[in-house]
Amino acid sequence: MSQNLNTPKGTRDFYSLELVKRNYLLKVLKQTFNSFNFEEIQTPSFENLSVLTGNYGEDEDSLMFKILSSGEKLRKADLDSLKDNNLSKFANSLSDKALRYDLTVPLSRFIRQNLNKINLPFRRFQTQLVWRADRPQKGRFREFLQCDIDIIGENNIMNEVECIKLYDSVLTRLNFPKVFIRVNNREILDGISKIMKLDSLDVIGPSLDKSDKIGIDGVINELKLKGVSDESLKILKSFLEINGSNHDKISLFKKEFLKNKLSIESIERIEFFLDLIDKFDLNCLDPKFDISLARGLGYYTGLIVEVSSPENINIGSIGGGGRYDNLVQGNDPNLSGFGISFGFDRLYTILEDLNLFPNKFNSSKTFLFLNFGIDIIPNIIDHVNKLRENNIACEIYPSDKKIKKQLDYANQKGIDYVVIIGKEELESNKFKIKDMAKGEEIVFEDLNNIFKEINSLN
Amino acid sequence: MSQNLNTPKGTRDFYSLELVKRNYLLKVLKQTFNSFNFEEIQTPSFENLSVLTGNYGEDEDSLMFKILSSGEKLRKADLDSLKDNNLSKFANSLSDKALRYDLTVPLSRFIRQNLNKINLPFRRFQTQLVWRADRPQKGRFREFLQCDIDIIGENNIMNEVECIKLYDSVLTRLNFPKVFIRVNNREILDGISKIMKLDSLDVIGPSLDKSDKIGIDGVINELKLKGVSDESLKILKSFLEINGSNHDKISLFKKEFLKNKLSIESIERIEFFLDLIDKFDLNCLDPKFDISLARGLGYYTGLIVEVSSPENINIGSIGGGGRYDNLVQGNDPNLSGFGISFGFDRLYTILEDLNLFPNKFNSSKTFLFLNFGIDIIPNIIDHVNKLRENNIACEIYPSDKKIKKQLDYANQKGIDYVVIIGKEELESNKFKIKDMAKGEEIVFEDLNNIFKEINSLN
Repeated sequence: MSQNLNTPKGTRDFYSLELVKRNYLLKVLKQTFNSFNFEEIQTPSFENLSVLTGNYGEDEDSLMFKILSSGEKLRKADLDSLKDNNLSKFANSLSDKALRYDLTVPLSRFIRQNLNKINLPFRRFQTQLVWRADRPQKGRFREFLQCDIDIIGENNIMNEVECIKLYDSVLTRLNFPKVFIRVNNREILDGISKIMKLDSLDVIGPSLDKSDKIGIDGVINELKLKGVSDESLKILKSFLEINGSNHDKISLFKKEFLKNKLSIESIERIEFFLDLIDKFDLNCLDPKFDISLARGLGYYTGLIVEVSSPENINIGSIGGGGRYDNLVQGNDPNLSGFGISFGFDRLYTILEDLNLFPNKFNSSKTFLFLNFGIDIIPNIIDHVNKLRENNIACEIYPSDKKIKKQLDYANQKGIDYVVIIGKEELESNKFKIKDMAKGEEIVFEDLNNIFKEINSLN
Repeated sequence: MSQNLNTPKGTRDFYSLELVKRNYLLKVLKQTFNSFNFEEIQTPSFENLSVLTGNYGEDEDSLMFKILSSGEKLRKADLDSLKDNNLSKFANSLSDKALRYDLTVPLSRFIRQNLNKINLPFRRFQTQLVWRADRPQKGRFREFLQCDIDIIGENNIMNEVECIKLYDSVLTRLNFPKVFIRVNNREILDGISKIMKLDSLDVIGPSLDKSDKIGIDGVINELKLKGVSDESLKILKSFLEINGSNHDKISLFKKEFLKNKLSIESIERIEFFLDLIDKFDLNCLDPKFDISLARGLGYYTGLIVEVSSPENINIGSIGGGGRYDNLVQGNDPNLSGFGISFGFDRLYTILEDLNLFPNKFNSSKTFLFLNFGIDIIPNIIDHVNKLRENNIACEIYPSDKKIKKQLDYANQKGIDYVVIIGKEELESNKFKIKDMAKGEEIVFEDLNNIFKEINSLN
């Protein structure tokens, strides 16, 4: 057993100002979700493996944190698989549950399980942790908060538009600069794959997803190594190099698809979407039709989107999503879904980098009552109780250590005011509240005035 | 692999009114913690096994959910242990991390790791999930929310008092009836064990902890089966049968301890605590010195407490805690801790049973804009946007289904008002807002008045 006494690799503690800022960001997200009348749900941290596996793709499945079976179940260990070097089969014999990998697959399980209680279309939001056994690196963690909204119901473009407008509203509330939202349709990639004479879009998908990092040439080289023919790659390259406005690109792709006797429905859907979203007054988002967008997860079937970081901030996308027709229940067109995810940590990083967090988070001041001995405490208890009942944050220093020590504590903790009620003060009936930032003292008479005095400072 | 497509055993989904109520309860807890100037922290969901094991007790260690190692690490599987039927050793060869079992051990790791950044005494609160592989039963889950406060610093009775007063404040805010808080000191149990001529309190502790379920005779019988001598059991029985006021009991125990030449410091500490807490104006809590309280977890060393359920509600304690001198760092008296935990689910159950939840949780009303076709939408977008910017929750029905269907959706979702803006309304410049509960319609002229109209309903 490792003797590592720190947080596990890729995980973090949160406290102090960082946590205050995270809570602020989460509050903005939740308030916006509520304003769009999305309903919150929470699901368990782990799900049965049978629910999770087979939805994301093979690579992703291997990145799930599996829960080790306990007790007698361990006897089911499939030692033959271990001998045969089939580590993944060995692992599956020791586990029947895994930590959530995303929030979409648990949602689809939730819907199936609660179908008779759910009102369709179902607009839900969920802000919970997910876990991925990825190699940790700057900005990539093994435990992170995901914030998702999804609409389950018929496949209606209005749902896409509502979700995109929600992205826009969140970014607007956070005072974000303008960013691109890349838009594509998986069915267009299917069409391109057909024109390239490939079996499925799974050949080009993973490489396309890296295009913002490795460029068009990188994609082409990678696919060449995978054995895609030069002829096919020439077609792909010509498609990837198409530039111009969204509508120019749409016209060109329509022409190409028609030339190849393919349906242009998938392109018309993008066109319709772009026209409609245009009427929703986007403030921060600039939609960009981009066929190099593929989106990794296996369950997407239709329109896909991804929001880029602001210019000059190179931390990848800050969120993405898409339509999944078959995830909840393949044969039911009323259970098609569209959903998007907010990358909480990346939003946080950008707010930090662009100095977009508010200067002040909490208008409520904090108070420390100095401790002049246990016999003095009964004189102040009632007042402390009353302040707390009114949500004025205060504490009593636990022991009658030297006053300097107590003031040091107040300073280090960032306490706003220190309240001085000692024997001397009780005798003279004059009391002091010290403003720790300014160093000034407020003097007042009669202990019964303390609530009024402190309340006026809050 | 199990083909179970539901939530895993002992776990739950939360949504709708239940989640609204849980969020309310959590908000009350957090507000109260803040009013006592406790600082929030969050720790990772899993910790290294080396951090977790050896703190709780052997039984508890076996109830941790371990994370299965992945990839090459699986080759470390200790097959000899499996052959030798040492399943626990086999499990440890396959895992080096486990899900949080409580919030106290992660706190002690947090303190050690961040000692140079922390201001002592450190008052922290934490409201996060914990996981235990217990057999699920009514009211006992494998994933549940724990709400803890702890004060790490010198061993000072003021910290115990602050935490107990916080219990009291939370219960008062929740309109709880009066409940007992049982109080004991592990050192008193040590003394009793010595009088009984036992090696340690670990002999009697686990049985004592069941005393509220099995009674004094049950405890005695269980210990008899464990091989404790009749003579020792006679002593224990006479102690357990002592009745009377707290101070009567304290006097009697002092006498017994002195008679047996034991230090009475542990009893004086309880006495001092009860005197001091008395001055803190407890509202809901009635402290009761009770030597049958032992508290299971291995790390407690001093004063221990447990809050009972209200009379006639038999779901066990709603929280408990104690002092742990050696958990954070054995040799440092400045890192002694005292902490308490709130049993969130049990609090919830009691609020439900005693009808203590507020009638109304959210003052904000919800609005549904009926959909009369995609060409009408652009007329209402600006208004919907403005409402949302002002946190008025509204949505547009995604398709122009029959109005009856749309109204059914509104009814089932509990939408407060439906907004009617169709072609006809736009032509006549007269619009309607329908109160879904009363069935009444509000009619207004000029679409530009819509914000004013809706805002006045909110």
